[in-house]
Amino acid sequence: MVEGITRPTLILDTRKVETNIDKMLLKAKDTGAQLVPHFKTHQSKEIGNIFKEKGVDEITVSSVQMAEYFVAQGWQNITIAFPFNRLEIGVINSFLDKGVKIKLLVTDLDTVNFLTGNITHQIDLFIEVDAGYGRSGISSKNISLLNRMAKEISKSDNTKLYGIYCHPGNTYHADSKGQIQSIWAKAILEMNKVKANIVPEGASLKIRMGDTPGCVLVEDMNGVDEIGPGNFVFFDLVMNYLDVCDEEDIAVAVACPIVQKHTERNELIIHGGAVHFSKDHLFDNDEQKFFGEMVVFEENGWSPIVDGAKLISLSQEHGVLRVKDELMDTLSVGDVVGFLPIHSCLTANLMRGYIGLDGKRIEHM
Amino acid sequence: MVEGITRPTLILDTRKVETNIDKMLLKAKDTGAQLVPHFKTHQSKEIGNIFKEKGVDEITVSSVQMAEYFVAQGWQNITIAFPFNRLEIGVINSFLDKGVKIKLLVTDLDTVNFLTGNITHQIDLFIEVDAGYGRSGISSKNISLLNRMAKEISKSDNTKLYGIYCHPGNTYHADSKGQIQSIWAKAILEMNKVKANIVPEGASLKIRMGDTPGCVLVEDMNGVDEIGPGNFVFFDLVMNYLDVCDEEDIAVAVACPIVQKHTERNELIIHGGAVHFSKDHLFDNDEQKFFGEMVVFEENGWSPIVDGAKLISLSQEHGVLRVKDELMDTLSVGDVVGFLPIHSCLTANLMRGYIGLDGKRIEHM
Repeated sequence: MVEGITRPTLILDTRKVETNIDKMLLKAKDTGAQLVPHFKTHQSKEIGNIFKEKGVDEITVSSVQMAEYFVAQGWQNITIAFPFNRLEIGVINSFLDKGVKIKLLVTDLDTVNFLTGNITHQIDLFIEVDAGYGRSGISSKNISLLNRMAKEISKSDNTKLYGIYCHPGNTYHADSKGQIQSIWAKAILEMNKVKANIVPEGASLKIRMGDTPGCVLVEDMNGVDEIGPGNFVFFDLVMNYLDVCDEEDIAVAVACPIVQKHTERNELIIHGGAVHFSKDHLFDNDEQKFFGEMVVFEENGWSPIVDGAKLISLSQEHGVLRVKDELMDTLSVGDVVGFLPIHSCLTANLMRGYIGLDGKRIEHM
Repeated sequence: MVEGITRPTLILDTRKVETNIDKMLLKAKDTGAQLVPHFKTHQSKEIGNIFKEKGVDEITVSSVQMAEYFVAQGWQNITIAFPFNRLEIGVINSFLDKGVKIKLLVTDLDTVNFLTGNITHQIDLFIEVDAGYGRSGISSKNISLLNRMAKEISKSDNTKLYGIYCHPGNTYHADSKGQIQSIWAKAILEMNKVKANIVPEGASLKIRMGDTPGCVLVEDMNGVDEIGPGNFVFFDLVMNYLDVCDEEDIAVAVACPIVQKHTERNELIIHGGAVHFSKDHLFDNDEQKFFGEMVVFEENGWSPIVDGAKLISLSQEHGVLRVKDELMDTLSVGDVVGFLPIHSCLTANLMRGYIGLDGKRIEHM
């Protein structure tokens, strides 16, 4: 299936994408939370359509630019899950003028005031809550500020407090399933406390939680109304090493030509570097950094991960593949081999397009 | 000058670009080596034109795709500085058919045989030599293979051995100017030995050396005929920390809106993440990782680096800026601040376009 591939190419197995989406929809159904999938991982019209065909009509994106892309694809109900940047007010108003429903995240009083003064139609807002990750959002401990935010939002008819949003991204740095579950349990508790303490809207507020590790692993979503994971659509080696997915769930592989063979040091040079994979990496059992693991393309997909075949360094266009002795004879200059990416969101963002197993091109924003 | 900027934007100071190019042209003149600049850093039509106006008509690129872009811009003499990937033979032949002069790098006998059998016009080849970096190329110690390569190339009229090419990229991991100079001194010695030992063409072979650190710092280019640096056109914090450039030589800064202020922990959230900067980083004096340093935009450019204001973490779209106490009061949500990138090649590749200080858009491939 790599016939015709001559340079680094991101191969997409849409059957795996379908399965990953189906599983997450089932998870949402089982836990009673609505899936509002995050589209930042795939950023693709066609993959968006797979969700649409399965009944999803409300989505999440991570930038106003990404919202522009999906509005142009006909999506009418979009949460921009990033602290609202007031400099983009013009685009937001143009969405609302067109009848697109937009939900924004707010994290400070000034921005709420700015919105009430400058938005041209009523808009739903989430207050972003930080339940321990330590990136954006208002700390769940700062009930006083959260309350002032809620009051400020309710002062104007232009702004409506829809819910509270939490991305517990610290799950990405967890060491075990148990740790991910415990981060989420704590975050859910915090979110419920925040909801209970926000007056007057508290009771009707929606709780939305992001992040793939938690949405996959947590069974008890007590009080969570909506989930917004993104990475699950492709998964990647980070998710596999966290035991969030099996390696066969990973839906993308980068096809790379081998261009040189260093027999004396069990290394091969591939065309595939930091401009294809990104510099994200993991560490193996010997604390050695690696940037991807090798698979072999087959008739209709790719093999399991080949043991002892990892990308050990990347420069702009070059990748260095180190393999076990017995593999050297099986690999030649001119072959095209595959690599599962460390972080599929960044790899897809760099590759800017996919080829399906049927050879058809699939768009990336 | 940030008026109208609403989202992450790569700002380019073309005056600095001009100065950086002028200095490198002078360096080439002083050392008697021809500058064949590498265009992988800027990947830009307009920046290519600045070189053209200064008399450069021969360039280097890092992929066949990049060659396609610059051929379309009218460039007629291009070295593709990457081990030739035989799967791209069709594109190479189409270049030659159009009369474009292409030089390729070869690193194994099989590929030479493939070329002699499949190239449709005579082509100039470099043998890529590894003088100690340990990535691609044939080891400078392997005189026997280098000689067989030279003989194989000379067997056919289709292939002509033009020279030997070395990218001593280990300079990027050096700790001091002295170490960079010593890596280069050793590499130049190796390259001259290889040249002396290659028969029969040895005497007429050109030696080309890449990499910005060496091309900037090395004064004695004894025997080096051509230099192919790329990064010098913009420089970046890696080059600044290596003492290869001054911070005022850095020609690009990423403009990023501030979207949240965490007064209690001296941090600000900016719109600017791994999809804008890449994940490349440096370590400060306290061994803390950082991903960019802050500058303030001014009437016609930007300030020196603001002391104690670094990006300490990046996720896909978010950046966390940590600043010293006294700076917190000077920064507000809605401000647009600048960041010098760690690695300008990867940042430019992600941003896919520049805005000049005059507000004009400058293309990236």
